[in-house]
Amino acid sequence: ARPSLPIRKTMGNFKGHALPGSFFLLFGLWWSVKYPLKYVCRKNKNACYLGSRAGFQRLEFVEGIIKAVFALIGMVAEQFVPDGPHLKLYNYEEKHWDHLMNWQHATMYLFYGISGLVDIVAHGTNALPVAMDRMMLSLAVFIEGFLFCYHLHGRAMLDIHVHQLLLFAIFGAAVCIFLEVFFRGSIILEMLRTSLCILQGSWFWQIGFVLYPPNGSPEWNQMDHTNIMFLTMCYCWHYAFAFLILAVNYTITSLFTLPGDLL
Amino acid sequence: ARPSLPIRKTMGNFKGHALPGSFFLLFGLWWSVKYPLKYVCRKNKNACYLGSRAGFQRLEFVEGIIKAVFALIGMVAEQFVPDGPHLKLYNYEEKHWDHLMNWQHATMYLFYGISGLVDIVAHGTNALPVAMDRMMLSLAVFIEGFLFCYHLHGRAMLDIHVHQLLLFAIFGAAVCIFLEVFFRGSIILEMLRTSLCILQGSWFWQIGFVLYPPNGSPEWNQMDHTNIMFLTMCYCWHYAFAFLILAVNYTITSLFTLPGDLL
Amino acid sequence: ARPSLPIRKTMGNFKGHALPGSFFLLFGLWWSVKYPLKYVCRKNKNACYLGSRAGFQRLEFVEGIIKAVFALIGMVAEQFVPDGPHLKLYNYEEKHWDHLMNWQHATMYLFYGISGLVDIVAHGTNALPVAMDRMMLSLAVFIEGFLFCYHLHGRAMLDIHVHQLLLFAIFGAAVCIFLEVFFRGSIILEMLRTSLCILQGSWFWQIGFVLYPPNGSPEWNQMDHTNIMFLTMCYCWHYAFAFLILAVNYTITSLFTLPGDLL
Amino acid sequence: ARPSLPIRKTMGNFKGHALPGSFFLLFGLWWSVKYPLKYVCRKNKNACYLGSRAGFQRLEFVEGIIKAVFALIGMVAEQFVPDGPHLKLYNYEEKHWDHLMNWQHATMYLFYGISGLVDIVAHGTNALPVAMDRMMLSLAVFIEGFLFCYHLHGRAMLDIHVHQLLLFAIFGAAVCIFLEVFFRGSIILEMLRTSLCILQGSWFWQIGFVLYPPNGSPEWNQMDHTNIMFLTMCYCWHYAFAFLILAVNYTITSLFTLPGDLL
Repeated sequence: ARPSLPIRKTMGNFKGHALPGSFFLLFGLWWSVKYPLKYVCRKNKNACYLGSRAGFQRLEFVEGIIKAVFALIGMVAEQFVPDGPHLKLYNYEEKHWDHLMNWQHATMYLFYGISGLVDIVAHGTNALPVAMDRMMLSLAVFIEGFLFCYHLHGRAMLDIHVHQLLLFAIFGAAVCIFLEVFFRGSIILEMLRTSLCILQGSWFWQIGFVLYPPNGSPEWNQMDHTNIMFLTMCYCWHYAFAFLILAVNYTITSLFTLPGDLL
Repeated sequence: ARPSLPIRKTMGNFKGHALPGSFFLLFGLWWSVKYPLKYVCRKNKNACYLGSRAGFQRLEFVEGIIKAVFALIGMVAEQFVPDGPHLKLYNYEEKHWDHLMNWQHATMYLFYGISGLVDIVAHGTNALPVAMDRMMLSLAVFIEGFLFCYHLHGRAMLDIHVHQLLLFAIFGAAVCIFLEVFFRGSIILEMLRTSLCILQGSWFWQIGFVLYPPNGSPEWNQMDHTNIMFLTMCYCWHYAFAFLILAVNYTITSLFTLPGDLL
Repeated sequence: ARPSLPIRKTMGNFKGHALPGSFFLLFGLWWSVKYPLKYVCRKNKNACYLGSRAGFQRLEFVEGIIKAVFALIGMVAEQFVPDGPHLKLYNYEEKHWDHLMNWQHATMYLFYGISGLVDIVAHGTNALPVAMDRMMLSLAVFIEGFLFCYHLHGRAMLDIHVHQLLLFAIFGAAVCIFLEVFFRGSIILEMLRTSLCILQGSWFWQIGFVLYPPNGSPEWNQMDHTNIMFLTMCYCWHYAFAFLILAVNYTITSLFTLPGDLL
Repeated sequence: ARPSLPIRKTMGNFKGHALPGSFFLLFGLWWSVKYPLKYVCRKNKNACYLGSRAGFQRLEFVEGIIKAVFALIGMVAEQFVPDGPHLKLYNYEEKHWDHLMNWQHATMYLFYGISGLVDIVAHGTNALPVAMDRMMLSLAVFIEGFLFCYHLHGRAMLDIHVHQLLLFAIFGAAVCIFLEVFFRGSIILEMLRTSLCILQGSWFWQIGFVLYPPNGSPEWNQMDHTNIMFLTMCYCWHYAFAFLILAVNYTITSLFTLPGDLL
């Protein structure tokens, strides 16, 4: 009657949310340093001794490699964890699909992997138009949100709500990155993307804490409407926090790259 | 069974709608003078004795300070009114969230405060890209609408409808301001934003009059469908009125700034 | 129990749909001549003897006057037809709103009137930025659609469906005209707008024929699902027909304005 | 009681999905060669011996002819297949619409036909603005999706779901092509369009296999929720596969058009 219950048991745990959350946080924090740096360097050209145009292009190349490696590890892990599908898609004995959740996560990673590959080719050679990297990243983020949308059937109200909140960050980022195809190098869009990436990362952690409270604290009441109102607000605080991090990193970066005579 | 009823009692009153309405009206009216002035000055450069480019930039700086101060006052007021939460988020004795409505409003103010701070830094120093002010304002307006969306559970039909109408002005303004990131200084977008801001302000007042009729007039029938049809139309009249104000202020401003030899 | 039934009786009739339909058709047909003419004249500058830049600007001025006059007539008619509200908004004896439908239609006309006024001022003087005309027209179309959305409560399935189809043309036109603020003079957008305007006009006529069959033919079965499927398809045929008209007018206009040596 | 059941019987079969799927695949594959070729030729101007600007324009002309011919064949086939409507729209004896599905499909083809005609005129003569071809193609794709939306009443859950997934590719392509009106020749948008076209084609085939399994394999359980989850994921794999095809064709094309001294 409720096919989703065993599914949720298999994948839903604290680590399953903390891990992707950490990856997004990592990338968000890195971008919150990289883009201010790039902006400052572009403004005072002769003063900046840290980065050049070619240097930043090499950075995007390295980012692509890291993205592709992470995605590969993620795909392999989803397949070969002890209770994973081990590349088996259909259980012919019991006649049902096998570990669909793991396959879905692997699919999400797959598109991030493709995005990483496109980064590598677009910035390592000049065979591909450079803007392909943004288009592919936008698609990867969109596919993540798209699969999330069909992920939530048959769950409890609070569970659905916290994942729906995540979708705002995901689709917001997808649109923002797609705009970057046309407004490449716009510091505004880059900062918006960074903030949404940090938000996504920290909210993954929050979901972990809410749905699978570690160290034995009691579960949240899934049916209490005030919990939903609190979490909606809490989501906004996470976003404010993301901007605080962005502001701090922006300030530090600006100070360190300022030419000596201005300090 | 109905957790929203006590909540509504706490915050829903005439003043709670008139106050934010007044702020939005104030800003809308001010913008309806400022942007025509700026436009006229840009058109007849040598004729205009009122404002220069630097002058308008200083204005945006002052606006930022006012926004930040208003937001701070708003946050403090929501926290420390007699029946406010006094910074207490969770009632451990009775095991429920404390004054969530006040916390939500404080969160809305928080983002306007951040927008004010960004204005101050972007126009007071040249450390930040100038377009950040629009992006942050757009986000603040979006967050306002976002929190409103999850604000309306369990209310009566008419109550929900008048707040939903408000969302058109809010999200319309958020999109309009986001477009200004890319089309900065477009008088069309600035006037659209101004009109939506006035609309939001005057509609807040209308909501106050409809839901909490002052001086003892009888309440509106919340279930009458014709009331909803009337209010939808009334919303359009408010918008027409906003354009009337805009037109009057535009005319006055144009006449006052015209060079003497054209009068 | 069903407050919408008497309302529908009052306004819903064949003429009430044929009249606005005719106005939209008129404007659509006129635009299907004007914009090709303008495009051809811009392409072969010295060859075209019909229109100049100033001439087209004067045309927009005249269009504004016609729009404003039509809107004024519409508003007066809605108010002072025999069973109209005669400026009475609330029936204090029977305690209900009076002729809300007529007031809603008058509100729609009001915004077209404002759009006409803005056209007059923007093209008659140089006090207003020219792009205001598109922004205001876009708003007028949007308000029309917005009021239509809250117009359809409590009606039969087929009735709702044919009006919903209309909304595609309306909101499509609103978005198209808003884009014209930024891409002014784009022949593509102007032709798209023209086609949507013709579609709206001819669909108004179709609604009249479907819901209030003149000369005594039997009413359509409001509950038959195949009727809905047919009308959806029929809507597309109207659109194809709009493009046929556009193509014919484009061809005729092109031939007449071609310089003699090319004929 | 269920008017949709006989309808589905009439049109729903394997061939009815494989045929349009093949057309989309054909166009997608062709575009996956053409656009990389065009891009490479534009980059190394003197090195490329395959195509010139005029050559590519002639290609678009030929594409238009093929599109128009295919659409004509499609329309004729839908009308004159043995159980088709033979141009009869209404069955006056039994008082119901006749073969609405065939008429709807013919309508879809009609708009692709119009798009083909516009291509022919826009690229064969210089009477039409060139960007009209993209606008008309965008409309044709949009109309296809629009008619699909009203196509799915009264079907089983899985049936609706696989068609809804198709709508993402369709409306995504419509938006992408509309953007090409303003960003004509953007390789990014052209590749996005190509990928969505291949996706649409291969998904049509998948729908055929799922809903009408050929060679007697058992039908899918229409009510099993895990089937829906699998197909959502499968849709993403199709998209990944579309990018694989695109990548292979891009590589081959690049290698063949590279000037000899770089090989």
